[in-house]
Amino acid sequence: MLTKDKKILIVGLGLMGGSYAQALKRQGFTVDAITRSQGSIDYALERGWIDWGSTTVDPVELGTCDIVIFALYPNVLLRWLEDNQQYLKDGALLTDVTGIKGPVVYKVQAMLRPALEFVGAHPMAGREVYGVRNADCSIFQGANYIVTPTESNTPAAVEATEELGRLLGFARISRLSPERHDEMIGFLSQLTHCIAVVLMTCRDVEHLSAYTGDSFRDLTRIARINDEMWSELFLLNRDKLLEQIDLFEAQMQILRKAIAQGDSELLRSLMRLSTSKRALFDK
Amino acid sequence: MLTKDKKILIVGLGLMGGSYAQALKRQGFTVDAITRSQGSIDYALERGWIDWGSTTVDPVELGTCDIVIFALYPNVLLRWLEDNQQYLKDGALLTDVTGIKGPVVYKVQAMLRPALEFVGAHPMAGREVYGVRNADCSIFQGANYIVTPTESNTPAAVEATEELGRLLGFARISRLSPERHDEMIGFLSQLTHCIAVVLMTCRDVEHLSAYTGDSFRDLTRIARINDEMWSELFLLNRDKLLEQIDLFEAQMQILRKAIAQGDSELLRSLMRLSTSKRALFDK
Repeated sequence: MLTKDKKILIVGLGLMGGSYAQALKRQGFTVDAITRSQGSIDYALERGWIDWGSTTVDPVELGTCDIVIFALYPNVLLRWLEDNQQYLKDGALLTDVTGIKGPVVYKVQAMLRPALEFVGAHPMAGREVYGVRNADCSIFQGANYIVTPTESNTPAAVEATEELGRLLGFARISRLSPERHDEMIGFLSQLTHCIAVVLMTCRDVEHLSAYTGDSFRDLTRIARINDEMWSELFLLNRDKLLEQIDLFEAQMQILRKAIAQGDSELLRSLMRLSTSKRALFDK
Repeated sequence: MLTKDKKILIVGLGLMGGSYAQALKRQGFTVDAITRSQGSIDYALERGWIDWGSTTVDPVELGTCDIVIFALYPNVLLRWLEDNQQYLKDGALLTDVTGIKGPVVYKVQAMLRPALEFVGAHPMAGREVYGVRNADCSIFQGANYIVTPTESNTPAAVEATEELGRLLGFARISRLSPERHDEMIGFLSQLTHCIAVVLMTCRDVEHLSAYTGDSFRDLTRIARINDEMWSELFLLNRDKLLEQIDLFEAQMQILRKAIAQGDSELLRSLMRLSTSKRALFDK
């Protein structure tokens, strides 16, 4: 379905948009880009990741694109569509890379004119650095990609979005409802970022690097965090994230109590359970 | 000081004891080993990691060793010394690899006869697997090694223990009091293992592996945990570990409140603080 004569527009040429461009150009597509900084466009043009780029919206160019990928912050994405959806080609497929789905997907679908279709997608890959200069489509290798269709989507558009994930190089493509996605991501991604931030800020750690083992380094790698993006994602998913924090906290209190009471048997059974559950991830 | 004519005895030939043997043999020392399983001895002998091994204590052999390294669970270490310290050579230097220091170091030093000296050490390296068959002294490369001297130690013995860390290949050798070590390790290592166990057990995660990104995998790598060893280490360090859990929990509640109240500024300032603190570890 995603034949190589399709023209792809990427809106937002940062770490993720740039990595998409690199991967899709390598697959033989025509790739255009709109982004704020001329430097980002020049960088991607020099590397042959895009065929055309602009810092402003060109209505004529918009009308030539079959697939539009938004690699923008959620609030910027909504504003962009308000301003520019009128220029997009009838039948164009729109998708995104946003880390939160419910508050984005339904709003976008509600505001789109009928001739356009939006299918939400979440590439579960990233780096602790950002900007197109850090783009690298090898981050998709072995990673997960989640598509979040709703009742308003057509099977053809959902399948094309999944196909896009495969073309980008993702190892596993899944479908989840936006609600279920946000619950999962609240647990798997947002809670883990909360933990990393809390670990890094809950006490003086200035002189700790001489004493750290791998475990602390592993748990705080993601404590280097884009505060603008993640605070927005946290607050968009507030209720689901708070639920996940509370689940975590309740279990931490059970573990704490086992330690305080010297309940070696409970401690060991929790450790055996975590060991067997974690082993499934390493299969 | 640790000239190659010194004879080293390793008591407990598991992951850590085996890795010590491999590294020290490579440095040209004579290395003996006492451990429970003949299979472990055969494995190490075949690889040339030890010169001699036995599943039982040989009083004559004990009397020939200059340095004795205990790679045992804390309670086993204390019992072993009760039974066998009489056979050790006058002037022998004793050290260990135990992950907790206060409850071990002072007890050992109090029970030792005056002709023996014990200097506690903690190699901050490990793997999620165990046994001599997983031993690999490359885990020491780039890792930290902490020596925990007390007032009863001589400068010469402390320096020899530090020298041992360098010979094993550790990148950074530090000195901490046993109390300070246990506080640091309660935070850096034990709390992080608690978090991993809690993350892995606080909810059903059976079908999550299709949706995980790197962050969840990073934070739960250490959820595969040796329940016998870690429950013992947790309980030996109970008060200090509980303090660290409480510090973490208090900060998590601050972050939770910022999310619940939609306090984007507080969220972002915590994220910027964690980012700048974590950056120091990547220098």
